[in-house]
This record gives sequence, C-alpha cells and structure tokens, in this order.
Amino acid sequence: MKKTIRMITGATALLLSTSALAAPSDVMALQDKALQDDIAYDIVEGLTTEIGPRQAGTDAEARARDWAVAKLKTLGFSNIRNEPYMMPTWIRGKETASVVSPFPQKLAVTALGNSASTGEKGLTAEVVYFPTLADLMAAADGSLKGKIAFVSHAMKATQDGSSYGAFGPARFVGPNIAAKKGAAAIVIRSAGTDHHRNPHTGNTNFEKGVTPIPAGALSIPDAENLERMVKRGQPVQLNLVLTPQNIGQQESGNVIAELPGSDPSLGMIVIACHLDSWDLGTGAIDDASGCGIITAAAKHVMAAGQPKRTIRLLWAGAEEVGLWGGNAYGEARKGDKHALAMESDFGADRVWRVDFNLPETAKPLADQIAGALQPLGIGRGQQPASGGADVQAIIRNNNLAVIDLQQDGTRYFDLHHTPDDTLDKIDPEQLRQNVAAWATVLSIVGNSDADLTMPAKE
Amino acid sequence: MKKTIRMITGATALLLSTSALAAPSDVMALQDKALQDDIAYDIVEGLTTEIGPRQAGTDAEARARDWAVAKLKTLGFSNIRNEPYMMPTWIRGKETASVVSPFPQKLAVTALGNSASTGEKGLTAEVVYFPTLADLMAAADGSLKGKIAFVSHAMKATQDGSSYGAFGPARFVGPNIAAKKGAAAIVIRSAGTDHHRNPHTGNTNFEKGVTPIPAGALSIPDAENLERMVKRGQPVQLNLVLTPQNIGQQESGNVIAELPGSDPSLGMIVIACHLDSWDLGTGAIDDASGCGIITAAAKHVMAAGQPKRTIRLLWAGAEEVGLWGGNAYGEARKGDKHALAMESDFGADRVWRVDFNLPETAKPLADQIAGALQPLGIGRGQQPASGGADVQAIIRNNNLAVIDLQQDGTRYFDLHHTPDDTLDKIDPEQLRQNVAAWATVLSIVGNSDADLTMPAKE
Repeated sequence: MKKTIRMITGATALLLSTSALAAPSDVMALQDKALQDDIAYDIVEGLTTEIGPRQAGTDAEARARDWAVAKLKTLGFSNIRNEPYMMPTWIRGKETASVVSPFPQKLAVTALGNSASTGEKGLTAEVVYFPTLADLMAAADGSLKGKIAFVSHAMKATQDGSSYGAFGPARFVGPNIAAKKGAAAIVIRSAGTDHHRNPHTGNTNFEKGVTPIPAGALSIPDAENLERMVKRGQPVQLNLVLTPQNIGQQESGNVIAELPGSDPSLGMIVIACHLDSWDLGTGAIDDASGCGIITAAAKHVMAAGQPKRTIRLLWAGAEEVGLWGGNAYGEARKGDKHALAMESDFGADRVWRVDFNLPETAKPLADQIAGALQPLGIGRGQQPASGGADVQAIIRNNNLAVIDLQQDGTRYFDLHHTPDDTLDKIDPEQLRQNVAAWATVLSIVGNSDADLTMPAKE
Repeated sequence: MKKTIRMITGATALLLSTSALAAPSDVMALQDKALQDDIAYDIVEGLTTEIGPRQAGTDAEARARDWAVAKLKTLGFSNIRNEPYMMPTWIRGKETASVVSPFPQKLAVTALGNSASTGEKGLTAEVVYFPTLADLMAAADGSLKGKIAFVSHAMKATQDGSSYGAFGPARFVGPNIAAKKGAAAIVIRSAGTDHHRNPHTGNTNFEKGVTPIPAGALSIPDAENLERMVKRGQPVQLNLVLTPQNIGQQESGNVIAELPGSDPSLGMIVIACHLDSWDLGTGAIDDASGCGIITAAAKHVMAAGQPKRTIRLLWAGAEEVGLWGGNAYGEARKGDKHALAMESDFGADRVWRVDFNLPETAKPLADQIAGALQPLGIGRGQQPASGGADVQAIIRNNNLAVIDLQQDGTRYFDLHHTPDDTLDKIDPEQLRQNVAAWATVLSIVGNSDADLTMPAKE
C-alpha cells in the first residue's frame, strides 16, 4: 500500500516537471523513423546467414570482422578500425553422453568452454546427483573420487535475467568445485529455461592449481530424465565423451567505428555489442542483435544531423570466452576522452526500463531522457546503471557515466548459448523498439553539453 | 449466417433426442475417475525414462516389449503375449551437413529412414533449390546429375494435422523423385512446424529399380538459412555426411493384452497404439502417450466391472518404419472375432472431435457416445472414421466398424520425429482428458450388444 502511494506521488511529481514531459518533436520524429528501421534486422540477417557461428579466435570470427568493417563503411561511419589482440583458444570436439545402465539411452550433452577432454574413448563412471550447487559444495572432500558429479537446479525465466545470477554458478564454478573434490567429470543441467534437446554451452573456469576435468551441460529434458533415473534408486553409470582441445594463442579483435561529433572537447559516447558468438548457434540474439541495435540507432542519429559528441561503436571480439575484446579496448583506449558508456547484449526483445548512473548535476538530462522514452513504453528504474561486460573495463578505468536500456529477458535463457540462437528468434517489431530507444538516448546525450564527469570514487 | 442457423437447429434437434442427452451417471462417474488418472502418465514416464528411444528391430524395442508385458501384467490384464515377426532394419550413422562456400557454416541435419550412405568422407556438391515439391517434380530429367536437391515448403500447424498430408510428401516421395532425376543426394526442409535446431526424421521410400540416394532433413532454421544463402545468387556448395546402414532382418514384435468380456459371442474391440519410436527422441508423444491413453482407459473400464465385449490392447511394433506390427496383427489375427477398431497415435493433447464409421443400425449407439463425450468438450464430426496406421490392416481384412477420437494436433508437428519428443512435452491434464474420452467410448461400446457388422463393401 505504502508502495502504491509512493508511485502515485512520483507520477504527480513527474507531471509537474517540464523536463520529464513527453519528448520534443525532433526526438519524436527520430523515434518514428527508428520504429520503421530495417538496418538492425539487416545486420542480424547478414551476420547469421553469411557468417553464422563466429567463435572467438577462429577463422569465422576473423571473417565476421571483415564483414563488420565492410558493413560499417557502407553505412557511412568513420575511423573504422580492426584492432587485433591474441588470446588462448579452446575448441569443441566430439561430445556424447550415454547412460550405460540401468536404462541405456543417449543424452544430449555439450562441453563447457575450458572443459578438459575425456579422450576419444570417453570415461564411464557412476553418477552422483546433487539437486543444487549448494549440495555439491557440501559434499565431503574426496567423496567424488572416480565419479561423475551431476548438478541440477531449478532456473526459471525472469524478465530482468536475475535467475542467471542465481543458477549460472552451477556452470561458472561447479566444475572447479567438483574437480577439487576429486570428481572424474561433471555434467550440469544447462543454465537455461527452455525445454528443448539443445544444451547450453558457456565458459567455466578452473582455479590455478586445479586440474581441469571434463565438464558438460545436459539439455534440460535430458537432465530431467537423468534425475528420474537416479531417483529410482539404482546406481546410474554414464559414459561421457568430450574431446575439446586448447589450440593456443589465436588472433581475435575489436571492430571500432565512429560518428564524429562537432565538439571534440565534449567526451565521446562509447556504445558496445559483441561480434563473437558461441559455436553452437548463429549468434542472433547473442549478440548480432546488439550490434544491429547500436549501429542502427547511431545511423538514425547520423541521418538527423551531426551530433555534438562523437559516438563510438565498439563491436567487441571474444566476449563469450573471457571479455578479451572489452578488456583490450579498456586498456588501449584509456587515453581517449570518454563521457558515457552503454551496451546492448541481452537479446532483441523490447526495452522496458532505463537506469542511470550519472553525476547529480546531470539530473535534468536523465529526466529529459526518461520522459522521451515514455512513448516507447519504457519506465524509469531506481537501480544504478552498471553497463555490460564489454564496457566494464573502460567504465572502471575511466570512471564513466552509464545508461542502461534494460531489455525484456523472459525468453533470453531459452536460447542463450544454444544451437537455437538463430535468426527466426528475432521479433522485428521488438528489435525496432530497441533501435528507437537507443536513437532517443544517443540523440539527447549526443547533443547535450551537460558535464557527465562522475564524482571521484572513494 | 446460414451456418449459424444450421448449428442452432442442430443443437435444438440434439436437445430433443434423449439418446444424445448428457451421459448417464455411471458414465459420468467413470469420467470423473479417469479425469484423475495417473496410469497414462505413469506409462509415458516409465517408457521414456527406463527405455527411451526404441527404434524398431533394435535391442531397445525388445526391452520395451519386455517392459510392456510386465506393465500390462501389473495392471491386471489377461492373455498377455509378445508376438514376434522379422523385418528389414535400417539404422542411423554419422550425420553432418556443412556449407563449404560461399558462407561456411554447419547445418543441423538428420538422415531419413532408408537413406543411402554418402560414405565416411561424405559428398560435396552444388545445391539446387526447389521452393516446393512440385518444383522438384517439374525439373527436367537428368538436370540434377551430380547435384544435391534441396526441397523446401511452407508447412504450418493445423489442428487436424492436415498439413502433414500436404507437406509430408516432400519427405515421403521427394528423395525417390530426386534419385530418378539423377541427383547425388537430397536435403529437405523438415516436415515440421517448429523453429528449433532439431531436424525431423521419418521414413522415405525408393521404388523398386531406383537406387537409393543419401536423403536428409534439415532443421527448419537451417533450411531457412540455406534458402537465404541460395537467394543471394552465388552457387552454394554443401558437404553432406550420412552413414546409415541396412543391417538386414531383425526381430520386432507386437504386445497384446486383453480385458476379457462376459459375452464372447459379441465381437471384441481392438484398441491400438505403437510401442516403437524413432531413435532421436524418447517417443513420448509418438507414441508412448497413445499406449498410456488406451491402457489407462481400459483399466478404468476394468475397475468399473467386467464389460460384455472383450477389449484387446495392441501395442504394435515397428509402426514408424513401415507398419510391420499392424500388418502382422492384421494377418495373424484375421480369424479372431472383431467388432470395432480404434487407435491413439496423434500425441497427448485433448480430444476435440469424435468421428464414427458404424453401420446405420448402430446410430443410437453413436448418438449415445456423442452425448456422453460432450461434458469433455468433444464435438461430433461428420467425417467417416478411418482408424489409424496400426489398425488399417485388420479394418481392411475384417471390414470393421471404427470410432476415431480426434486429438488436437496443433503442437504435434513441432515435436514429431525429433529429439524433442520427450516427457516434458506431455500436458498431464490433456492426457487425462484423453483417458476420460477413451474410457467413455470403451465403456459404452463394451457394454452394448448392438450389432456392429458393417455392410459388405461393394
């Protein structure tokens, strides 16, 4: 009840603040154009069709960088560069999982990034079932010797993606924990919210001094099936074949392009997506759509006339396998005058909320942006904006202001890191709403000379 | 408008016919119990967990027969038999498809039953695109020499499954047509209505004298991707590896069980499902659910007291690969006194319509059944019932009466013959509605001494 009253009071306050009124007519015109956008879809269609999967460090990622440079040139951006760096590269091999007894059948499995190999012949061992990661953590040291740990969980879809924080650790740290407890291998229930036979890959990491073990993700129907088998009470023997390899240092890189502003003394806006994808799908929602959204939005701003601030596009490389591109950018470009960072890397569904992390003096700017986003069905959040994986380094290094356009993530973990991340999952209408939201923010901030310098950190 | 009036008139007529009034209290009580049923789900859960995929002619199908015999015994059925027969068996090998140029990437493919092998090294050839099967049929003889035919189509979901009749032929006869025109191989867009990276397998057949060619189905997102590539205008080279084998005559079999009736002079009711499944999924909707539905319904009738007519359950073998079980039953059991045949083999979603093919004299019985099904939300159709694949032979041989309980097939071709045919796709509430509908029909016909002899065929 208290909450309702506060909301009403908030709404009344908004109505009284002229800066929070609906967008001015030039911004409305920009939104109208962006809501007809085909550039973002064209980028997603092109990357998924002409390149497809583009795992970091592979030829496919290199072809994707060439594709990106050509596309950004065609769209009229300036200062287009391919900035390479080297990074250690892991690639997938064969992958099968078969229950040997008591109920022989194959299970759909995929190796997690950085998994060790079982060798070509695989390994067969008894499954030890843990309903949650906490249960694995509670297992006695050495109790898993020679066994395959099986960690399940109950990840459910959430609009804000918060369930990934709760259930993702089964993948992030589960294998390391199982290795330390002596397990021969681990399989987890995929960190996902769908019910298809497509497992969700993604990186896992082993601490220094811990010998990596084979680590796989079962599709959710297969994990449920294995749970049912285990619960029948007989020992379950699983044969696991995963033959990934570490192929050493390989080249990856960032693609950078700019819409130059008229006043170089104002700090630039850096907007990021990532160009690499996991190898199983074609990287439509993760993250061709992000590249499509930020690029289309910048193009609409370009078409409306030169902004005051430079808008820099970062199509980062090697996000999935350890944020190599974002980190390389954060180091290499530390000296450039940045004012604000933003990122799009949560699919292609509609933006529902805007969050800010701006200096107190820029409150009128935030009010203006929040007001201008209202016609797009976007509310204002109270959480401080934090950016995303590929702008973390530059935000941290340069103490940058941030704006987050939060996307609806309800469907995101149905598709994330699976073979099902393909073009047909993109809803063109929702994609256009993203472009309009981004164009709105870029236009307002790009034409504002408000001081965006963040207070020094304590 | 005319239609509406006719519907109202029909309804009024129904209200005036006492035989079409809502079900009598004993049938209502049976429906109430069946709507609480757990037997059907238990059968689907057991078969998918303890056996999983059970392709005809394999050890898994043999284990499934043992499982079925044990389950039917536990449920209290009589005269339980495993009736074996031999049949030629084809099994899957490796299967990959990769675009070699101009846009290198892997496509998700599966071999169609009876596909030839490409050999371990596979074959690489140019793709020739046909938007429809009719376009393939129109291609000049010899025009496909050394090429891979690619047949697409636009199958959409339909409640009555009629789109399978329209678009299934790309699979049924497309490979034979391509082989006759000299193609090195064929890939088709899966005969399915989903958008997942799981191709739909299923049998194809080559005429005598036509040398089989490698024949695969692409998942729908992959077929769409290949279409987009082809439409860009450059020749598309595809590498296809399919290594299935024919392993000769293997044993398959039918499992038969009975609920004996009190009056052997009345013909029996034979009710069928099939026990085999395709190898990719666990055969939950195709057709563990059918076996669950017919068996649970017969069990509820058993619990309500011995019926007059014998109810015989046929869990047929080897349906998917050529109706071997149904045909074996039709020959071996021709001499048994049958009165009526029914089958459940269209998933686990709700029954929405009942169709009849009964002699004119049994009209009051049909009216009674249609009335009793109304509380379950089931309308009466005007199409003559035709039964299903596994009762075709006995219907034809013995000129049997038939009742069809039509299931909602809207989701069926999302899952049909894919890895995604798993337990989690079963909606327990809809499954129970099926059991209640079947129990209603079996109870009414099982306790009726109406003459069901069909008029002799012309």
